Amino acid sequence: MRLSNYFLPVLKENPAEAQIVSHRLMLRAGMVRQSSAGIYSWLPLGLRVLNKIADIVRQEQALAGALEMLMPTLQPAEIWRESGRYDDYGKEMLRITDRHDRDLLYGPTNEELITQIFRDSVRSYKELPRNLYHIQWKFRDEIRPRFGVMRGREFLMKDGYSFDIDEANARRAYQKIFVSYLRSFKRMGLQAIPVAADTGPIGGDLSHEFIILAETGESEVFCHADVLAQPVPEADYAADLTPVIDGYTQYYARSDEMHDAAKFEAEVPADKRLTARGIEVGHIFYFGTKYSNAMKALVAGPDGKDVPVHMGSYGIGVSRLVGGIIEACHDDEGIVWPWAVAPFHIGLINLKPGDEATDALCEQLYQNLTNHNLDVLYDDRDERAGAKFSTMDLIGLPWQAVVGPRGAKAGEVEIKNRVTGEKQTVALEAAMKILSQPPA
Amino acid sequence: MRLSNYFLPVLKENPAEAQIVSHRLMLRAGMVRQSSAGIYSWLPLGLRVLNKIADIVRQEQALAGALEMLMPTLQPAEIWRESGRYDDYGKEMLRITDRHDRDLLYGPTNEELITQIFRDSVRSYKELPRNLYHIQWKFRDEIRPRFGVMRGREFLMKDGYSFDIDEANARRAYQKIFVSYLRSFKRMGLQAIPVAADTGPIGGDLSHEFIILAETGESEVFCHADVLAQPVPEADYAADLTPVIDGYTQYYARSDEMHDAAKFEAEVPADKRLTARGIEVGHIFYFGTKYSNAMKALVAGPDGKDVPVHMGSYGIGVSRLVGGIIEACHDDEGIVWPWAVAPFHIGLINLKPGDEATDALCEQLYQNLTNHNLDVLYDDRDERAGAKFSTMDLIGLPWQAVVGPRGAKAGEVEIKNRVTGEKQTVALEAAMKILSQPPA
Repeated sequence: MRLSNYFLPVLKENPAEAQIVSHRLMLRAGMVRQSSAGIYSWLPLGLRVLNKIADIVRQEQALAGALEMLMPTLQPAEIWRESGRYDDYGKEMLRITDRHDRDLLYGPTNEELITQIFRDSVRSYKELPRNLYHIQWKFRDEIRPRFGVMRGREFLMKDGYSFDIDEANARRAYQKIFVSYLRSFKRMGLQAIPVAADTGPIGGDLSHEFIILAETGESEVFCHADVLAQPVPEADYAADLTPVIDGYTQYYARSDEMHDAAKFEAEVPADKRLTARGIEVGHIFYFGTKYSNAMKALVAGPDGKDVPVHMGSYGIGVSRLVGGIIEACHDDEGIVWPWAVAPFHIGLINLKPGDEATDALCEQLYQNLTNHNLDVLYDDRDERAGAKFSTMDLIGLPWQAVVGPRGAKAGEVEIKNRVTGEKQTVALEAAMKILSQPPA
Repeated sequence: MRLSNYFLPVLKENPAEAQIVSHRLMLRAGMVRQSSAGIYSWLPLGLRVLNKIADIVRQEQALAGALEMLMPTLQPAEIWRESGRYDDYGKEMLRITDRHDRDLLYGPTNEELITQIFRDSVRSYKELPRNLYHIQWKFRDEIRPRFGVMRGREFLMKDGYSFDIDEANARRAYQKIFVSYLRSFKRMGLQAIPVAADTGPIGGDLSHEFIILAETGESEVFCHADVLAQPVPEADYAADLTPVIDGYTQYYARSDEMHDAAKFEAEVPADKRLTARGIEVGHIFYFGTKYSNAMKALVAGPDGKDVPVHMGSYGIGVSRLVGGIIEACHDDEGIVWPWAVAPFHIGLINLKPGDEATDALCEQLYQNLTNHNLDVLYDDRDERAGAKFSTMDLIGLPWQAVVGPRGAKAGEVEIKNRVTGEKQTVALEAAMKILSQPPA
């Protein structure tokens, strides 16, 4: 993408309304704009990150056997009355009346709707197990939306739902998603800690939150340090996953909400007690027959008798992760994207547009890199070098490649590693090789 | 995808609520389920088609230089008051009040929001032209939603907006999108006719609708037959597009809404008068400074003076197209997908799961086809052959490949062309070759 044709409205000043670093950087880097409190438009640069995160989630869900579908944003109130949650949910639920005075709501989550779809379609245990998910905009009418996309009102969530014939199978479905979440966050360049969690209004007796470490995170995590050393498993979902899960859950790991200081001290040796800040980016629940009982989602078992299906639900905050990754990955100059979610892999800077040799080398590099399926943002604008450098630092692409008249004459490119700040000047061929891989 | 692990709740009976063929077939083929009047969930099979259509639109928008972003579904009422459309829009606009009694609405279109984003970011003609689009769910509170996704309330639309310094440049932006729409619909396997259109509540003085031909379409089209013979242009957006546009617009072409029988007869020779049924799937507008004046979206021109930016807007009904394509492409047995939007390219039927040779040949074919980036739905279920055939006919994949014990022994596959119904029995190698290409 040529920056001269792109839409990247960066801000020089820190916006007054942004209290946390990710919000500040997303506004400054031209990734989002607020339209109402807690409601954002995603500009092209921001959308690229959102899509890369969503695609990692999709790939890992597919490996775990989950099927993608797409439920609407608006839901009928009736099904929430059936489950008993319509009145419980309080003012965070955005309630809507249509022109025929029917009650609708903007879905904050989808247990009811997916249970309705399931019960209308599936009649036999032979069609189980099933795991269906979607990635769709949700709404929670937060009383005080803040922190940008980290606590927005309209937000993008992946929510998935598993259906099994009994508890043993449902727990296995839970384990698969547990593993797929560890893998998803790792692929995004994050260290995620699963912590024992409260089930809240979703219900059920088994739940974990996934918290990514970030110094500026809103949550506090208390855990045994060895949790961090647990390996992230292969995507072998035919295997017994219990040892993997036990590897994590054998240790104390809780966020401030569930923290029990006495238990922490009793269970974790002093030199293994880890306290860190983090951000919740995923939450999984096993809640058995809570919704299938209330909404009569029954299937015939092998003996022909109808039984309520056992369910779990599994959420990842896709739009929240964009902010979360920035909280975990930034420095004083701006964002420092992990390779897998970077909006572009390489920022190519032409120091003298109009200079024939410089233009030619830039074009060659741009075409070669693009042909290798690398995403390149090419700053071909007639701008001061300083402004170009600071924009590239701000938007945080993993590599910068700088070409000026002197380098062009020598056939050389200056490469900067955005993570370490290290620079090196190399010939075109060597540049191609370096830029094709994530910086160390 | 193995059907034994998929979620494809087909219906044997015609659902009573469906009045038109696309609605009936989408319900029967397990593509969608209604949750409220005019609001649908997209099941896995339906979502695949929706995504394939959206991806074609994305690719063609990118070629035409448009940039993808993503605006939220909910918008603040204030900007609609600024443009003057808040009161005009009537009951089709879903108006919402949040917990702080602020007026929101579920966006039916985005001229106001994009104009706000533009005016807050762009100050100079040097940053023009720009064309920004998004693919997002919209809501129109139709008094009587019907015809399935063809006239739903919550619907997926691609809407794009162009910004130019003057009318001449804006008309050029309009031409680019005109061409990109012709190309997009053609790639979906459709013949689209651009017809002169009314500008309605969007405003402006230049507008075309794109109507695809379908015998069961809701609109009537009157045009000179030579419109249909016009070539769909290459994606050469640096070229002068006027001859291409004139090739289409030189002829009379209108839908019933704008039809003028006297003009039709005067301008079109009797043997060239074509009357056909069709479905509106796109609508483009040039409306100049209507919104930029009302909302003060000004840019400094080359002389330093502020001028209101010239705008156009461009819509494609992405979810509507799923229904529209089915209206254009079906027979008595079910849907007949064009290759480019088919949810899967090939339906592989195992006539005797459990038979070693049959399973082996099916697996080999499944793996080979999948490795060639073909989308295969493999019916590996323990089901009657008749049920498998009728499901495959119903869901309308371009090719069917059938393997039974006898064929497996001989290393042969029966291939059926879903378009023509033609069958042939061929060896594995030949089958691979045939199945990799769209059926003739």
